[in-house]
Amino acid sequence: MTKPMGGIPAEFRAGEDGTLHVAGRSAASLVADAGGTPLFVYDLAMVAARIARFRGAFPGVSLHYAVKANSYAPLLAAIAKQVDGLDVASAGEMRQAIGRAEHISFAGPGKTDAELEAAIGAGVTLNLESEGEAERALTAAGRLGVRPKLAVRVNPDFEIRGSGMRMGGGARPFGVDAERVPALVRRIIDAGAEWHGFHIFAGSQALSAEALIEAQRATVVLAGELAEAIGVTPPLVNLGGGFGIPYFHGEQPLDLEAVGAELAETLAQRPPILRHSAFAIELGRWLVGEAGVYLTRIVDRKVSHGKTFLVTDGGMHHQLAASGNFGQLVRRNYPVAIATRFGSEPEEEATIVGCLCTPLDRLGDDVMTPKAQVGDLVAVFLAGAYGLSASPQAFLGHAPALERAVSGGS
Amino acid sequence: MTKPMGGIPAEFRAGEDGTLHVAGRSAASLVADAGGTPLFVYDLAMVAARIARFRGAFPGVSLHYAVKANSYAPLLAAIAKQVDGLDVASAGEMRQAIGRAEHISFAGPGKTDAELEAAIGAGVTLNLESEGEAERALTAAGRLGVRPKLAVRVNPDFEIRGSGMRMGGGARPFGVDAERVPALVRRIIDAGAEWHGFHIFAGSQALSAEALIEAQRATVVLAGELAEAIGVTPPLVNLGGGFGIPYFHGEQPLDLEAVGAELAETLAQRPPILRHSAFAIELGRWLVGEAGVYLTRIVDRKVSHGKTFLVTDGGMHHQLAASGNFGQLVRRNYPVAIATRFGSEPEEEATIVGCLCTPLDRLGDDVMTPKAQVGDLVAVFLAGAYGLSASPQAFLGHAPALERAVSGGS
Repeated sequence: MTKPMGGIPAEFRAGEDGTLHVAGRSAASLVADAGGTPLFVYDLAMVAARIARFRGAFPGVSLHYAVKANSYAPLLAAIAKQVDGLDVASAGEMRQAIGRAEHISFAGPGKTDAELEAAIGAGVTLNLESEGEAERALTAAGRLGVRPKLAVRVNPDFEIRGSGMRMGGGARPFGVDAERVPALVRRIIDAGAEWHGFHIFAGSQALSAEALIEAQRATVVLAGELAEAIGVTPPLVNLGGGFGIPYFHGEQPLDLEAVGAELAETLAQRPPILRHSAFAIELGRWLVGEAGVYLTRIVDRKVSHGKTFLVTDGGMHHQLAASGNFGQLVRRNYPVAIATRFGSEPEEEATIVGCLCTPLDRLGDDVMTPKAQVGDLVAVFLAGAYGLSASPQAFLGHAPALERAVSGGS
Repeated sequence: MTKPMGGIPAEFRAGEDGTLHVAGRSAASLVADAGGTPLFVYDLAMVAARIARFRGAFPGVSLHYAVKANSYAPLLAAIAKQVDGLDVASAGEMRQAIGRAEHISFAGPGKTDAELEAAIGAGVTLNLESEGEAERALTAAGRLGVRPKLAVRVNPDFEIRGSGMRMGGGARPFGVDAERVPALVRRIIDAGAEWHGFHIFAGSQALSAEALIEAQRATVVLAGELAEAIGVTPPLVNLGGGFGIPYFHGEQPLDLEAVGAELAETLAQRPPILRHSAFAIELGRWLVGEAGVYLTRIVDRKVSHGKTFLVTDGGMHHQLAASGNFGQLVRRNYPVAIATRFGSEPEEEATIVGCLCTPLDRLGDDVMTPKAQVGDLVAVFLAGAYGLSASPQAFLGHAPALERAVSGGS
C-alpha cells in the first residue's frame, strides 16, 4: 500500500527539461560539477530568504545560528555574515566559528577543562551547564588570567508543548534548575566574571505557533523572576529556538509571523528589570533544513515478491534521519522524488533503499514515483539540517558524500 | 525508578585495585597508554575464544567474518588469520580485506559498476543481489577479460523467528527471490562465469537456538532444491549468520553448541546434490561484540530535580546503539559500569549521559552505580560490534574516539 510522504519545499521546481532544479541549475549538472553522487546541495538563497523572513517577523530580536544543525564551512561562512551570533556545541564547532562572528556562545553538558580554557582564551561566551562547570570555568580563567564571559543555561520548569525533543522541564542534563540559578549567577559576578545573561532552551522542532508563543512568554517571565532574584539586568536572554519544519505527511509549517507578533507583545510588556536586556533566538534546523537536498543515483532496479525496489548509491550512512533510525519511534517518509523525472507524473509504487547491506537502510517506503531506471537521480529533501554530520558516515566503509553550497547567482 | 541493564560479559573483572581490567590491564592504564578518552578497547583473546568455541561446536563448517561488524584494522588483521573467509559489504571494506584472506566475498544491494569491476579484478567473489547486477558484473568481467567468481544471494521465503533484524522472507531489497534463482545461476554458468554457490541470509541478532536451527534446516533444504533445479552442486553454501549476543536485561546467551549439534545432523542428512558442497557461517557481532568496551571519562556530576547525572566526554556520536537511537523502538540500557570503581557495590541511582547537546545522548538511564566523581571512567560494554563505525562521529564536531586492540600477552 502506498505510504504518504512529507511535502517538498516550494522552492524546488522542475526546470524546462523536466528535471529538478536547485538554485536555477539542474540536479544532473550539479552532480556533474561536484564529481558524482551522493551529493548534498545547500541552496544559500533559500537560507537567506529564511533569515530575511525572520528579520521581518522578529524586529529587534537577535538571530543566532545553531552551528550543530549544519557546519559545512561554505554554508557556515555565508550564514555567519547574516546573523548576530553563532552558538556552538563543541570545541570543533567553536574552531569553525571563531573569526566569523562577533558573538559566539558555547553550550553543551560535557565541556572538558581543555574546552573551557580554549573558549575563555578566545573570548567565547560559555553557557554554563552546572555549578561544577562554573567552578571549572572560573579556575580555567584564573589560570589564563582572563576575565571570562559567562552566561547561565537555565533548565526551565516548562517545555514547549508537543516539542519534537524535550530539552526543558523536569530532571535534565542541560542547564541549572531555575531555583538554583540566582545563587550561581551571584557566585559568577562575585568571582569577577563578565555575566552575559541567560540561555533558556525549552524544546526543539515545534510546529505549533501557540506552543512556541506560550514557551516564549514563560521564558520571559522566568528571565524576569531570575533577574529580580539576582538584582541585576541580564545583558542577553537567549530564548532558545525550537522552530520546526514539516518533515512528514500532514504536518503544517510553523506560522512564524504569529510567533513574532506575540513575542513583540510579550517583550513590550516585559518586567522593568529586563528593559535593557537584549533578546536572541537561536535557530538551526529552521534556517537550513529545507535548503538542503541529498542526491543519489539509482544503481539497481529490482523486483521482489511483486514489490519494486530502487537501490541507490546513497543511504542511511549519509541521511540517518531520513532512514527513520535517528531517534524516531515510527519510520515515516521524508519527501523524496526522482530528480531526473521531477516534472513527470507518478506511475508506480516503489521502495527506495540505500546501498547498505542492512534492512534499516530505507529512503522511501512504498512511495509513488515516475518509472525510474538505473542511472536516474533520487532527491531526498529536507536534508539541510542534521544530515551528513548526524549520520554514521563510516558505516560499512562506503565512500563519503560530497557537499556543495550553491546560490542562484553562481 | 532504577532501570535494569544487560549483563556484563564474564571476562570483564575487577583487578586487585578494584577497577575494571581488560586483557589483564586496568582501564586507567589502557586510557593512559592510548592517550585519553573516549577509547574503544577490543580484547583479542576474547575474540579468539569465540572463534575457538565456534570451531568446537561446528566442526567441518567454515567460518567467515562479516567485516561490517568492526573493521578496525588491527582487529581485522588478527581475525583474518583465524577464519576461513572475510565477507565485505563495500569497496572500502574490500580494500581492507584484500590480501588478508584467501576467500573474500562481497555482498550488498547497491554495488556500483566501479565496485563490481574492482571486485572482479581482485578475484573477489561477488554475491549477486539481482539479475541486473549479474548482467552488470558479466559486462564488467568482459571489459576486464577476467572470469568472474559469482555467487547468488538468495532471498529465502523464511526468516529466523524472533530475529533482531529481518533479512529474508517476503519482499526484500536483498538477494534474488528463490524461484528466480535457478534461471539466474544457469545464466551465470552459461556466460562462462565461475559459479561459487549460494548466500542465504535469513536474519540477524537471534538468541534462540531453536529459531536458528529451524532457519538453518530450511536453508539447507532450500539450497538442495535450488541445486536440484539447476542440476549443479554449489561449491559453497553460505548459511548466513544471525547469531546474537545478549544486550539487555533478561536476555539469555545463545546456546551455540545446540545449534552446532543440530546443524551437524542437518548436514549429515543433506540432499545428495549437496554432498560435495562446503558450508560456511558468517559471523560478525557474535565474534566481536562482547570483546569491545567503550571507555569515557566523567566531566561533570550534577543534580537536576533530585536526579543525579554523570556527564561524560563520550556519547552517541561513538556509541549510537547504546544511546538507543539506532533503529530501536524502545531505549533499554546496555550494560554500563564505573570502570574505576568496578569492584565497588552500587550506592546510588544515576543517569549517565554523553557530552552532546541533545537529549538523545544517553548511555545509561537510571542505573545503580557506586558513587562516581568527575575524573572517574565509565565503561559501556558490548561495544565491539557496530560501535564506532555505526555512529555519527562528526555529530556536533567533537573529537574522534580512539581505538585499541589488546591481548592478554601484550
